[in-house]
Amino acid sequence: MKKALIMLGCVLGLHTFSFAQEIPVKGFAVMEPGFEFQPYEFTRHAVGNDEIQIEIMYCGICHSDLHEARQDWMEEHYPLVPGHEIAGRVVKVGKNVTKFEVGDFAGVGCIVNSCHTCDECNHNREQYCPKMVSTYNSVDYYHDGEITQGGYSNTIVVSQDYALRIPDGADMKRVAPLLCAGITTYSPIRFAGVKSGDRVGIAGFGGLGHMAVQYAVALGAKVTVFDITEEKRDDALRMGAVRYVNVNRPEELEGLNGMFDFILSTIPAPYDMSMYLRMLDFGGQFGIVGVPAFKEIPNLTLDQFIWNGGRKVFGSMIGGIRETQEMLDYSVAHGIYPEVEIIKADAAIIGEAYQNVLDGKVKFRYVIDMSTIK
Amino acid sequence: MKKALIMLGCVLGLHTFSFAQEIPVKGFAVMEPGFEFQPYEFTRHAVGNDEIQIEIMYCGICHSDLHEARQDWMEEHYPLVPGHEIAGRVVKVGKNVTKFEVGDFAGVGCIVNSCHTCDECNHNREQYCPKMVSTYNSVDYYHDGEITQGGYSNTIVVSQDYALRIPDGADMKRVAPLLCAGITTYSPIRFAGVKSGDRVGIAGFGGLGHMAVQYAVALGAKVTVFDITEEKRDDALRMGAVRYVNVNRPEELEGLNGMFDFILSTIPAPYDMSMYLRMLDFGGQFGIVGVPAFKEIPNLTLDQFIWNGGRKVFGSMIGGIRETQEMLDYSVAHGIYPEVEIIKADAAIIGEAYQNVLDGKVKFRYVIDMSTIK
Repeated sequence: MKKALIMLGCVLGLHTFSFAQEIPVKGFAVMEPGFEFQPYEFTRHAVGNDEIQIEIMYCGICHSDLHEARQDWMEEHYPLVPGHEIAGRVVKVGKNVTKFEVGDFAGVGCIVNSCHTCDECNHNREQYCPKMVSTYNSVDYYHDGEITQGGYSNTIVVSQDYALRIPDGADMKRVAPLLCAGITTYSPIRFAGVKSGDRVGIAGFGGLGHMAVQYAVALGAKVTVFDITEEKRDDALRMGAVRYVNVNRPEELEGLNGMFDFILSTIPAPYDMSMYLRMLDFGGQFGIVGVPAFKEIPNLTLDQFIWNGGRKVFGSMIGGIRETQEMLDYSVAHGIYPEVEIIKADAAIIGEAYQNVLDGKVKFRYVIDMSTIK
Repeated sequence: MKKALIMLGCVLGLHTFSFAQEIPVKGFAVMEPGFEFQPYEFTRHAVGNDEIQIEIMYCGICHSDLHEARQDWMEEHYPLVPGHEIAGRVVKVGKNVTKFEVGDFAGVGCIVNSCHTCDECNHNREQYCPKMVSTYNSVDYYHDGEITQGGYSNTIVVSQDYALRIPDGADMKRVAPLLCAGITTYSPIRFAGVKSGDRVGIAGFGGLGHMAVQYAVALGAKVTVFDITEEKRDDALRMGAVRYVNVNRPEELEGLNGMFDFILSTIPAPYDMSMYLRMLDFGGQFGIVGVPAFKEIPNLTLDQFIWNGGRKVFGSMIGGIRETQEMLDYSVAHGIYPEVEIIKADAAIIGEAYQNVLDGKVKFRYVIDMSTIK
């Protein structure tokens, strides 16, 4: 009996100790599939020796947040706090942390952990690690299987290895979307080897697309933008595109077959992939980063590869941590930022923003100012 | 009335003149979708100024002949004389012909004409010309819309631009299948940039696959062969493969994910394309040349490109005329030939051979000895 009481005391003591370290968080969650946000309080695990705590200043709204909120891709864990375009300030560092000091600006993208040992991790491609942990809605294998919660919240704890240094002089209001929209487009553009003079198409001119245009233009490519609206024509030309094609006007597509070295598709809705394949020159490449809902996912049948022989198709998922840092440094150095609309940290306003993203009404990225959270 | 009679005389005279030039041909045709061949006599157009007539010595049986005979891909014109792996001797040359003399050995592959003016033609990729004329079952735009008939016949007429020079010393019995099986695998292996030390997979080890193995081995690649039978294991190793995988034995697939720089699929039946994508290393390429029947055509959904990001997929259709000549010269110089089984030019024997190809019972290519035609 005495022994049992001592054991109980130990357990209670341990729990008390553990709870003492946990960090209270305020955020916004959807409680079931859909866009209805609610204020949501939860905790994050204590700052470990290799971890930092970031006070979140800004968090971008990515189209994939919408897909996840309404469970377009996979089973989600609710309450769900989205957000993987996070920029803020370091407020606490673990004792082994060397990369950051309190007061530094830091960012978090789509990845908060991975195994460190597989071939992908060994080659700085943590995004393809079979045990990669996403910033939200992911089982954190490395913290007792807790479910991660994202950046629509006032603070986050993350290993220094997965946090990004935000370069001095960065525009904090606009830097957050680089952590997903930036790297997701920068990485395949680099992978495809885009260079000066290349004929590049960017299909889908939203949050991702308008970043892709800026990178391709910065690299000297002749950029054509494809979208389904007239409203963004001027924006595309203003950002340096040489041509804007409204694909709902068939006459604008005439004469474009075989005319591109690289086309990047950021389209998050169903579309005709083979139409873009036909627009590639021999040896050209079609990169895919936009992912529609699985129930309406497009495909390429084997024969379409044959009819468009010598054209290469590849997908690309975000980017590794090293490349994300490279992208961040490149973007800030070249003044490449998203065009953002800052919104307040308010459940109703976030829900409304989601609807606007779905309707293609945002130019080009909503960013939540987390300092306004109540 | 007198004028009308003169005109009639002219027309009749022209017809008589035209018929006089037409060339009688003996061959074998299927009269309706299926594998039932019959002896079939028809004519070919007269030898034009830029054309040659070839007495066909050998014609290979390609898996695509089977697909066409039973109308797996598109609507066919019956009677249908298949055959696009043709080797023979020049028996007549038009007055403008400079590339051949009577007595030369010459070959014909899958293409007998194209427009000469489009971007694809201008870059020696006649196989992608929108007005390309196939060796059989094709509308010949350049000869009044006649339907082309293939090489299961004793003679063929073709423009010198689309005929290949068969190098001196070539083994005529084995050279014919190079015109399709050879170029169809040589071209994507070159396009993919296969080099010494590369880890190459060849999926499907039949007529095309066993050519692909030989080219990849000749280029110094470490070749793994994938097929669904035990019967070809020894053949693969004998041809220089370092590994043979029977994909019906799941244990043989273990540990292969991420292990290849290039995989070429020659599989002519439905299969799981994404399984091969997973076996590619980052930056690796999946080339497709085998085409199953359209009713059972496999596909890749958009998300499969994303999960296997950084892996490139491309199709390849035969090869252009210039590259076909390059392949022929390379093959003969390096002693690279198909392994063939010579059969007699007999309707029943050809039908039986088709069934064996379908059942995977041929090692590796049937070639019809057209000199035995009765």
